[in-house]
Amino acid sequence: MSQPLRLGIAGLGTVGAGVVKIIQQQATLLTMRTGREITISAISARTRKKDRGVDLSGYGWEDDPVALARRDDVDVYVELMGGSNGPAKASIQAALDAGKDVVTANKALLALHGQMLAEKAEAAGSVIRYEAAVAGGIPVIKALAEGLAGNKISRVMGVMNGTCNYILTRMEATGQGYNALFDEANKLGYLEADPNLDVGGIDAGHKLSLLSALAFGTQVDFDGVELEGIQRIALEDIRQAADMGYRIKLLGVAQMTDRGLEQRMSPCLVPANSPLGQLEGGTNMVVIEGDSVGQIVLRGAGAGEGPTASAVLGDICDIARGYRYPVFGQPATSLVAAQRAQSVLAAPYYIRLSLRDKPGALAKIASILGEAGVSIHRMRQYDHVNDIAPVLLVTHKTTRAELDVALTGIEKTDVVTEAPVALRIETV
Amino acid sequence: MSQPLRLGIAGLGTVGAGVVKIIQQQATLLTMRTGREITISAISARTRKKDRGVDLSGYGWEDDPVALARRDDVDVYVELMGGSNGPAKASIQAALDAGKDVVTANKALLALHGQMLAEKAEAAGSVIRYEAAVAGGIPVIKALAEGLAGNKISRVMGVMNGTCNYILTRMEATGQGYNALFDEANKLGYLEADPNLDVGGIDAGHKLSLLSALAFGTQVDFDGVELEGIQRIALEDIRQAADMGYRIKLLGVAQMTDRGLEQRMSPCLVPANSPLGQLEGGTNMVVIEGDSVGQIVLRGAGAGEGPTASAVLGDICDIARGYRYPVFGQPATSLVAAQRAQSVLAAPYYIRLSLRDKPGALAKIASILGEAGVSIHRMRQYDHVNDIAPVLLVTHKTTRAELDVALTGIEKTDVVTEAPVALRIETV
Repeated sequence: MSQPLRLGIAGLGTVGAGVVKIIQQQATLLTMRTGREITISAISARTRKKDRGVDLSGYGWEDDPVALARRDDVDVYVELMGGSNGPAKASIQAALDAGKDVVTANKALLALHGQMLAEKAEAAGSVIRYEAAVAGGIPVIKALAEGLAGNKISRVMGVMNGTCNYILTRMEATGQGYNALFDEANKLGYLEADPNLDVGGIDAGHKLSLLSALAFGTQVDFDGVELEGIQRIALEDIRQAADMGYRIKLLGVAQMTDRGLEQRMSPCLVPANSPLGQLEGGTNMVVIEGDSVGQIVLRGAGAGEGPTASAVLGDICDIARGYRYPVFGQPATSLVAAQRAQSVLAAPYYIRLSLRDKPGALAKIASILGEAGVSIHRMRQYDHVNDIAPVLLVTHKTTRAELDVALTGIEKTDVVTEAPVALRIETV
Repeated sequence: MSQPLRLGIAGLGTVGAGVVKIIQQQATLLTMRTGREITISAISARTRKKDRGVDLSGYGWEDDPVALARRDDVDVYVELMGGSNGPAKASIQAALDAGKDVVTANKALLALHGQMLAEKAEAAGSVIRYEAAVAGGIPVIKALAEGLAGNKISRVMGVMNGTCNYILTRMEATGQGYNALFDEANKLGYLEADPNLDVGGIDAGHKLSLLSALAFGTQVDFDGVELEGIQRIALEDIRQAADMGYRIKLLGVAQMTDRGLEQRMSPCLVPANSPLGQLEGGTNMVVIEGDSVGQIVLRGAGAGEGPTASAVLGDICDIARGYRYPVFGQPATSLVAAQRAQSVLAAPYYIRLSLRDKPGALAKIASILGEAGVSIHRMRQYDHVNDIAPVLLVTHKTTRAELDVALTGIEKTDVVTEAPVALRIETV
């Protein structure tokens, strides 16, 4: 039997406590599977005295996660505090400097500083593993970086923010509006401290940028993700989508095109009977398309103590078994800067306008669309309420560039009361 | 850069040729991802002269796969011939004896001789990898043995024979009977040389037995899989199932119960709108349930050149990167003999009987069911045609043992013309 693998765990929220529980309760199983005992040397959290439902008395304590990361009795530094800077970043850097391996669930940190950390890790001969950073318990990093390593990946798609999907599916199920469901999600503790991370699509965008790097051998480029949140989705949009056989999902798409890497995270219409369309509540789904494997679909809980801790343990077990490879699946120095391509592929779009009750208003809209090269597949106008009429359009296939010209033109007129809502229709 | 990883590939059917193609076409990508060049030293197949759509001129040739497996210039022996005995078994044993690692797609061989081969591999310090043996391109072995290694697995389910699923979904779509679709599948080359491997559920049973070993730490026990094929499924069954909101799938279920390991591969009714119910054609799906992760669903192509070759390459890349762990996820000597438990969990069943036109016939059936403790949830009798009336029953929850008593009793009477068809209803 080899030496024990000794962990230092920073952050004892639900996930951190969940990891400790598994290590305590499944000790025999973990040793059987990895050939090593997995032990916890020391822990760190914001407050020491708090009942976390797990016995922590046998472990060393560090107030400072940086000190924890540097301890001689720590082989793997497990960072579960979160945050894209501050203690998380400082402590992971300290761990790498000290030659430790790192396991983290921190998507924001990796999305913003992934390239720097990957270079640092490789220089130090350390690994960074982050299965828990993307899609909770679904082993998607593993599938992409290992299982499908023989494939040239062409596209990765996914619904990867459970809170947004909860809000959207509950709007449809209950007939309540966005604000009411936002409040409900907040009360249930589903929202990040900064809710915009969730509903603004940022959290999901972080995840997508990590999958892109793994899939395409490009440097993580979170800034290259076209982001759009779900804040402007109205009940009306959900109903209209349903009426046409679609559901609205905050969908991430990353694909390598002739012109470069396209990455977007935005609410889209997807067929209601497709695997993505059928996702309920907090469930996540990732779709991976490779030249040999075709399409692989992975589904599971996207968050929560158990699923996230499961992913952390998967990484720890790999390290215990001696599995080591570069952070983004190939040497950090070989990752190329992504050439950004903005939605070069045409798609139909759903558009909702709030039209003023003026003569010629609709004609104006139609002519702006026509001039931009956007042709209308179908259109409905409803009754005016308070002099405003909802107009719903579905376009024929158009590029985002053409559409943006049209939308900007429409917004500048005096016939709409707010910027149009435009949602891409994906035939996944 | 490390030394190249040198392969010897035996079997150049579609999968073998596909593997060669990927290694030739994606050489740069594979080296980037694994840090090593992946080369082919030599190959072996039944006939040397045959156009396989790929240039084989640069490789050594061995008529005998055993000789290939033993070559000094082979680090990894890739067995893609198939067959549970004969050359496949002999050559894998030879490879292990010579201290080589093995990658194989051979589910039958591992299902029947997995324990022996695992012990041999571990004694030799070799690994055997077999992602391609189960569910084609879906990285399910990886998910189970690695990604979910922190979980106590409670249940694994799956639709893992594309040919059966093709026949069943085509019956529903076209309204043609089993025999017609069997012939169609045969013409399309979807059936194994011995079709019973497919339609008898044996091939899928082999796969299930491998997943069981990985999931539960038990010795592979293919003989412990309760097997039932799809040969007796009639169009009527598919229609009745649809009518009740179900679809019929050849479903594998392996679960650890208080009484032991339950493994069955049989046609079942599953909800039409469930992920399993929606599977079309040759697509495979595996559902894994763990104590921490909850439920993970994996979906993808279950067979074919590209998907299977993708799985083989995933294994090769892991070996190139130096990943090594026991064949069934824990030391072979620690795997315990599975205690077989036959369907201890009760479920409702769908039963179809062919009843003779005799006074009291239905009463006789009902009384046999009642005496066995099987209560009827609903029943329909149709018109007699040629003195035979189809009777369709759905029972309340019953154990397989109780049901078997009833079915045996019914078969012994003179009021049915053939053994009843009984299909479990799974509420997955």
